[in-house]
Amino acid sequence: MTPNPQQADPQQVAEAVGRAMYAADAATRGLGIELLDIGPGRARLRMAVRPDMLNGHGICHGGFMFTLADSAFAFACNSYNKAAVAQRADISFLAMVPHDAVLTAEAREMAGGGRSGVYDIELRDQHGKLVGLFRGHSRQIKGEVVPGLA
Amino acid sequence: MTPNPQQADPQQVAEAVGRAMYAADAATRGLGIELLDIGPGRARLRMAVRPDMLNGHGICHGGFMFTLADSAFAFACNSYNKAAVAQRADISFLAMVPHDAVLTAEAREMAGGGRSGVYDIELRDQHGKLVGLFRGHSRQIKGEVVPGLA
Amino acid sequence: MTPNPQQADPQQVAEAVGRAMYAADAATRGLGIELLDIGPGRARLRMAVRPDMLNGHGICHGGFMFTLADSAFAFACNSYNKAAVAQRADISFLAMVPHDAVLTAEAREMAGGGRSGVYDIELRDQHGKLVGLFRGHSRQIKGEVVPGLA
Amino acid sequence: MTPNPQQADPQQVAEAVGRAMYAADAATRGLGIELLDIGPGRARLRMAVRPDMLNGHGICHGGFMFTLADSAFAFACNSYNKAAVAQRADISFLAMVPHDAVLTAEAREMAGGGRSGVYDIELRDQHGKLVGLFRGHSRQIKGEVVPGLA
Repeated sequence: MTPNPQQADPQQVAEAVGRAMYAADAATRGLGIELLDIGPGRARLRMAVRPDMLNGHGICHGGFMFTLADSAFAFACNSYNKAAVAQRADISFLAMVPHDAVLTAEAREMAGGGRSGVYDIELRDQHGKLVGLFRGHSRQIKGEVVPGLA
Repeated sequence: MTPNPQQADPQQVAEAVGRAMYAADAATRGLGIELLDIGPGRARLRMAVRPDMLNGHGICHGGFMFTLADSAFAFACNSYNKAAVAQRADISFLAMVPHDAVLTAEAREMAGGGRSGVYDIELRDQHGKLVGLFRGHSRQIKGEVVPGLA
Repeated sequence: MTPNPQQADPQQVAEAVGRAMYAADAATRGLGIELLDIGPGRARLRMAVRPDMLNGHGICHGGFMFTLADSAFAFACNSYNKAAVAQRADISFLAMVPHDAVLTAEAREMAGGGRSGVYDIELRDQHGKLVGLFRGHSRQIKGEVVPGLA
Repeated sequence: MTPNPQQADPQQVAEAVGRAMYAADAATRGLGIELLDIGPGRARLRMAVRPDMLNGHGICHGGFMFTLADSAFAFACNSYNKAAVAQRADISFLAMVPHDAVLTAEAREMAGGGRSGVYDIELRDQHGKLVGLFRGHSRQIKGEVVPGLA
């Protein structure tokens, strides 16, 4: 019986989950979203606004701001390798996001006792300006993201 | 001085706004979203789930469910030809949406006194099953969607 | 073995739950809230605004509007006699509520598959004017409200 | 013509607003809520749970948790002496609050550009445990809280 310190380390678990989720997530990759960083209960993702994300005002459609934040939420709330799903989420739009913006979403766990979680995600542009606030509620379901990992 | 009944009719105003917004909205068109119906304070849009909308579970990424609802919200809250923007929105995810689903979002105005509006959007699949509930808060800004229309 | 139709009837179960909850709920009774009606997945409650509910503007403090709606939510989501708790809720304030208003909160279930529920509550004054919109998310826990009832 | 440095200092303005609001707010005082601290865009309030705040489970009714947070929100978003009203708010209930708890609500401004504001309020018990998260959206209206102050 050998201890397996690699699997027990929460940071390494989170990174393995992040790699597996990212590889499988066609939607996130299709939007050009990058996974910059992941750890226990947190994740940081980046997306450059593209022409096909612009609405009639020539600015980023709020749905794509939400989608970036929602992906960050998903990576963060699955980072313990216990499969979790979003139950609900909300977003506050604080500033218009122009066609050439590069957005970063930073997710952190606010509460995680039991199987329910609350995560806050901040959306900032390439100058660090806060352009959106997102709060998501997750629920753990049965199963692991990476079976047998931890 | 001739009356102009066409411009004064709220239904015709809404339809003209819908055509103009749809033509200009690259994001909504790029997702294959169709504008099925629009009227004063309401709109109905449809989107077929595509392979590039699937997450790692092989189901529709919640961000695309939100985006469809958010587009319906935008059409409905601009339907009076007074330019309006989303301030915030929330979504409840009620059921997983499989890869071959066709979603319809129906938006209706719940409150609209003054310059603030509240809109509820129901997301249903092709069998009529409710898969998401969205509530959005809008704020009218200066300007018209179609200048000079009404 | 005798069938027990009384206990099996959802309406009668809801009414028994309503009576038991109301009798035990010091907070709801202390605010002078009346339980007007209850049924499976729904409830209707009434509260007259009192001087000790007024804020510095001389109107009803939003917290008491929320509390009335939250009580309606609690009665509705427990009406199946499966104990349920509020996980989160939001309220939109649509109109100022004057010192002499009588508010009614009507709760209805929007989604209830599984152990999670979504309830919408409308707050209206004595003239039927919509003054608030509330959406709550509930979660069933172990136990019954009235043990052994259904 | 003499400069009036006292009125121009944001901290002193906030404190004067806090005193005036608290004196006029029968609802907040009636619940035994204390104003512990106020500053530009922030406020901290405290409330001891009372027997008349308990629901049928013998714990604090969520409505009173909301009311405390909503009062903190109101003090914070009016702290610039520009009259502001709540447009909407949401609360996540993270833990049951027993009959003898003393709750503190700490409000801080997350976004305040223009006339719209977003405030986050944390609710903690006397041991520092996080029991609720509240997010409120405010809108400035005409007028000042303390006329002529700043």
